[in-house]
Amino acid sequence: MIEKSSAELYNDYRLQMNKIADVRYASAVLQWDQETYLPQKGAAIRGQQIATLSEIAHRFFTDDTLGGAMQGILNKNDLPFRENRNVELTWEDYTKQKKFTSAFVRELSETVSKSYHSWMEARKANDFSLFAADLSKLIELKRKEADLLGYTDHPYNALLNDHDKGSTVALLDGVFKNMRASLKDIVQQIVGRPQVRDSFLFQYYPRDKQWEFGLRLIKELGYDLEAGRQDISEHPFTTNFNSNDVRITTRIHENDLSSMVWSCIHELGHALYEQGLPEDQYGLPAGEPASYSIHESQSRLWENHIGRSQSFCERYLPVLQEYFPDQLKNISVEDFYKGINKVQPSPIRTEADEVTYHFHVMIRYELEKKLIEGSLETLDIPGYWNEQYSNYLGIKIADDKQGCLQDVHWSHGSFGYFPTYSMGSFYAAQLFFEAAKAIPALESEIRKGNTEPLLKWLKTNIYRHGRTLTSEELCESVCGKPLDIHYFLKHILAKYKNIYNF
Amino acid sequence: MIEKSSAELYNDYRLQMNKIADVRYASAVLQWDQETYLPQKGAAIRGQQIATLSEIAHRFFTDDTLGGAMQGILNKNDLPFRENRNVELTWEDYTKQKKFTSAFVRELSETVSKSYHSWMEARKANDFSLFAADLSKLIELKRKEADLLGYTDHPYNALLNDHDKGSTVALLDGVFKNMRASLKDIVQQIVGRPQVRDSFLFQYYPRDKQWEFGLRLIKELGYDLEAGRQDISEHPFTTNFNSNDVRITTRIHENDLSSMVWSCIHELGHALYEQGLPEDQYGLPAGEPASYSIHESQSRLWENHIGRSQSFCERYLPVLQEYFPDQLKNISVEDFYKGINKVQPSPIRTEADEVTYHFHVMIRYELEKKLIEGSLETLDIPGYWNEQYSNYLGIKIADDKQGCLQDVHWSHGSFGYFPTYSMGSFYAAQLFFEAAKAIPALESEIRKGNTEPLLKWLKTNIYRHGRTLTSEELCESVCGKPLDIHYFLKHILAKYKNIYNF
Repeated sequence: MIEKSSAELYNDYRLQMNKIADVRYASAVLQWDQETYLPQKGAAIRGQQIATLSEIAHRFFTDDTLGGAMQGILNKNDLPFRENRNVELTWEDYTKQKKFTSAFVRELSETVSKSYHSWMEARKANDFSLFAADLSKLIELKRKEADLLGYTDHPYNALLNDHDKGSTVALLDGVFKNMRASLKDIVQQIVGRPQVRDSFLFQYYPRDKQWEFGLRLIKELGYDLEAGRQDISEHPFTTNFNSNDVRITTRIHENDLSSMVWSCIHELGHALYEQGLPEDQYGLPAGEPASYSIHESQSRLWENHIGRSQSFCERYLPVLQEYFPDQLKNISVEDFYKGINKVQPSPIRTEADEVTYHFHVMIRYELEKKLIEGSLETLDIPGYWNEQYSNYLGIKIADDKQGCLQDVHWSHGSFGYFPTYSMGSFYAAQLFFEAAKAIPALESEIRKGNTEPLLKWLKTNIYRHGRTLTSEELCESVCGKPLDIHYFLKHILAKYKNIYNF
Repeated sequence: MIEKSSAELYNDYRLQMNKIADVRYASAVLQWDQETYLPQKGAAIRGQQIATLSEIAHRFFTDDTLGGAMQGILNKNDLPFRENRNVELTWEDYTKQKKFTSAFVRELSETVSKSYHSWMEARKANDFSLFAADLSKLIELKRKEADLLGYTDHPYNALLNDHDKGSTVALLDGVFKNMRASLKDIVQQIVGRPQVRDSFLFQYYPRDKQWEFGLRLIKELGYDLEAGRQDISEHPFTTNFNSNDVRITTRIHENDLSSMVWSCIHELGHALYEQGLPEDQYGLPAGEPASYSIHESQSRLWENHIGRSQSFCERYLPVLQEYFPDQLKNISVEDFYKGINKVQPSPIRTEADEVTYHFHVMIRYELEKKLIEGSLETLDIPGYWNEQYSNYLGIKIADDKQGCLQDVHWSHGSFGYFPTYSMGSFYAAQLFFEAAKAIPALESEIRKGNTEPLLKWLKTNIYRHGRTLTSEELCESVCGKPLDIHYFLKHILAKYKNIYNF
C-alpha cells in the first residue's frame, strides 16, 4: 500500500471537517429556530433532535480515521503554515473531545435543551426554583466535564480555557482586582455629580418604527443582509451557519429605545466578525473566530467605541428624529450623547452602562467559580446574587427575573463564558486605540456614516486570522504587546470625566 | 450470549428509528428554512448541509444492526399487530434503501439542492433553459433510481410505487382515461353556459389583512397554532418535524383573494392530518401518513368539499366582509359561492378550478412517463407542455413561468408525485361521502363554523391508522370498497349542474 502524502491526508481531513461542520451548523439552525419561530408544543422533541445531531458530530469528530490523518500530517510536518495550524488546532480539540463519551455528550445536550425550557418557564413565572433542579444537573455535568478535561489549580480553569485558551482563575482574579479598584473610584466620582438626563429614551417608541430603524442601522454600519437576517428573540444573539449566513436577533421594548438600538449594534459587531471570516475555510479553525473574548471585543468595539461615541450621535440623532419626530424633537446631540452614556447602577446586565457593566460580570464570575468548586449550592444562588448586587452596585434586586434569571447562558450550559464579556471590553479598548491610530479620519468618517475604513482595518488585522492566533497572540500581532487593561480604564476615565465633568 | 426477546429487539429498533427521524426532521427544518428565511448567499452551503444529513440518515437506516433486529422480530413473529406492522413496513423500506449507495443518495440530494436554486433562477428570468441542465441530471438520477429499485412493465412504476404503494402506469392510464371522457363532457357543458362572475375576487386586497384573515381561518378550522405556524414562501407547502410541530406556508397576491384563501385551506388539510397522527409513534410507520394520495385526499377534502361548499360561504362571507368591507359589500352568498367555483381553463395548476385541475395533472403525468421512459428530451418539455395545454384545455401558454416552470416538484426530484393529486381528489370525494353519511349535521355545523365533528371522524377513521394501511386498504376500511372514481364524478356533476344550470 502506498502511503498517502500530506496533501492527500489534508484533503481527507478537510472533507471530514466539512461534514462535521454541516452537522454542527444544522444543529445551529435547529437552535436558531428554537429561539425564534418554534411553536410551543414542538419544544420537547426539538431537544432530542439537537441531542442526536450533537452526538453524531461528536462521533464523527472523535473518529479514529480523522485522528490518523491528523497524526500523519503532524508527523510529516511539511504543509504550509495555515494548513498546518488548522491541523494542530483540530488535534488539540480532538484529544479534548476524545475524553468525552458519546453518552456524556448526549446527556449534556439533552440536559441543556431541557434546562433552556425550564429557564423560560421560570422566567415566565418569575421563580428561580423552577429552574434549580435542571441547573443543578447541568452544574454537576460541567464539573464532570472539568474532571474529564483535566486542569491545574481549579476545576473552573478547564471551562475558562474552553472559552479563551490560556484563561485561568489566577489571571482573571488579577484582572478583576485591578478593574474593581479603578472602576469603583470612577463610579464614586460620577455618583457625586449631577445625573444626566435620559428620560427621552423611555417614551413610547412604536415597535414597527424601532424595527425599521434597527434594520436600516445595521445595514448602514456594514451588515450584509444578503448573507444574514435579523429576527426577534427573548434574548438577543448571533449565530451562523457559514460566513454567508450569519443571523442576529434583537428585542424591542416599546418604552425603551436604547434596548433595541444598542443590542442591534452589539450583535452587529459579532455578525461582522463572522461574515468577515475566510469563507474558504468552512469548518476549519482558520475559518473560526479566535476566542469568545475576541468575539466579544468585536461586539463591544461597535457597541461602545462606535455606537456610544459623539460621532455616532452626530450621524444618527438626525436619522432617529426622522423616525421619531415627536419623541426626539427637542433633543440636542449633546443631550443625546450624555443620555445614552448615563452611568447608574441597575439590575440588568445587558442594559447596564459601560462602567457598571463589569461589576455584573464580576459577580457572575465569582458565582460560577463557587458553583464549580462546590462551595455554593444552586438553591443559594438568588440569595448570593442579591447580596452581591447590594455590595457592589448598592442596589436591591426586586425579584428573580430582575436577578439571577436574567441571562440565558447557564441554561445553555455555558460556564466560563461571562468573564469573556469583560475581557472582550478590555481587548476592544486596546484594539480600537490601534484602529484610531491607523485611521486618522475615523471619527469624521463615522460622522458621515461611512464605516468602510474601519471594516477594512478589522478585516485585515483581525477577521482574516480566524482561529490561527489566540486572543493574546492576536493582541500582540495588532498592538505589539499583550492585553493591558489601562487602555480600557483610560478610555472610561476620559469619556466620563467629560460627560460628568469631574 | 442470551438471545434478545422480540420486545428487546423492538426497543433497539425503535431507538434507532427515532434517531433516524431526528436526522430526517433536522433536514426538514433546514429545508423549511431554505424556503422561508434563508438569506440569498447562504443557499450554496445549505445544499451541502442537507446532503450530509441525507447521507447520515441513509447510512443509519441501512445499518446492518437495524436490519438484524428487524429480521429477529420478523422471524419470531410474536409482537402485537401495530408493532409487527411497523417492522414489516420498515423492512420493506430497508430492503429498498439497501439498493442505494451512500454516494448515490448524496449525489441525488446535492443535485436536488442545486436544481431548486436553478429553478428559482429560471423562474425569475422566465427562462426554462436555465433549469434544463440540472433537470436533465435529475431525470437521469431518477431513471437510475428506478433501475436500482427494480420494476415490472415500466420504469415509472418504481417511482409511482414510492408515492403510493401499488400505483402503476396501467392503473393510472385507466383512471385518467375514465376521467378524461367524463370531465371533457362536463367542461363542454359548462363552456356552453353563461360564465359566472368572479371579478370581485380580483380587486385590491391588502397583504396584511389577507394574512390576518388566513391565520384566523386556519385556526377556526381546527389548526393548532401551538403545534404549528404559518409563514410565507414562493410555493405553499406543509412540512412537519413531529406531530407537535407541523408548519404550513402560504403566498399572498394583493390582486387575488382566492390564491391565499384556498391555498391556506389546502395546506391546512395536510397539516391537520400530520397533527392528528399518533404522537407516540414518532419516527415509525404507524406515526406516518398512509401515502401521498391519502395525504392529498385530506387537503382536497378541506379545500374542495369544505372550503368551496355553500355552508363555508354562508359562514365566511360575512367574516370576509368584516375584513374587506369595500371590496365585498355588494356580494351575496350565492354570488360568492358561484364566483369561487368558477370553471375556466387556465395555465396555473394551483389556481385551477376543481374540474379542469385534473387535466393539469394528467399532462404532467404523461410528461413524466415520457421523460422517465426516455421518449422525450428535457429541452423539448416547454414545447410538449404548451401543445398539451392547447389540446386539452384549449389555451395558449404565454411563457415558461405560466407553463412548465410553475411547479417546484421536479426541482425537488419528485417524479411520480403529481398523479397523487388527482388520486387524492378522487379519494377525497369518496371519503367525504362517507363522512357526510356518518355526520348528518355536518353542513349545519360548518355553517356555524364548527369543524369538531368532522375532525373527530377523520381522526377515528383516517389519522389514527398512520401508515399501517395502504391507500386502498384505508379506503376499504372506511368505505367498505376500493376507490371508485364515480363518487368524484357524481360530486362534480351535481355541483356544477347547479352552478351553471345545465
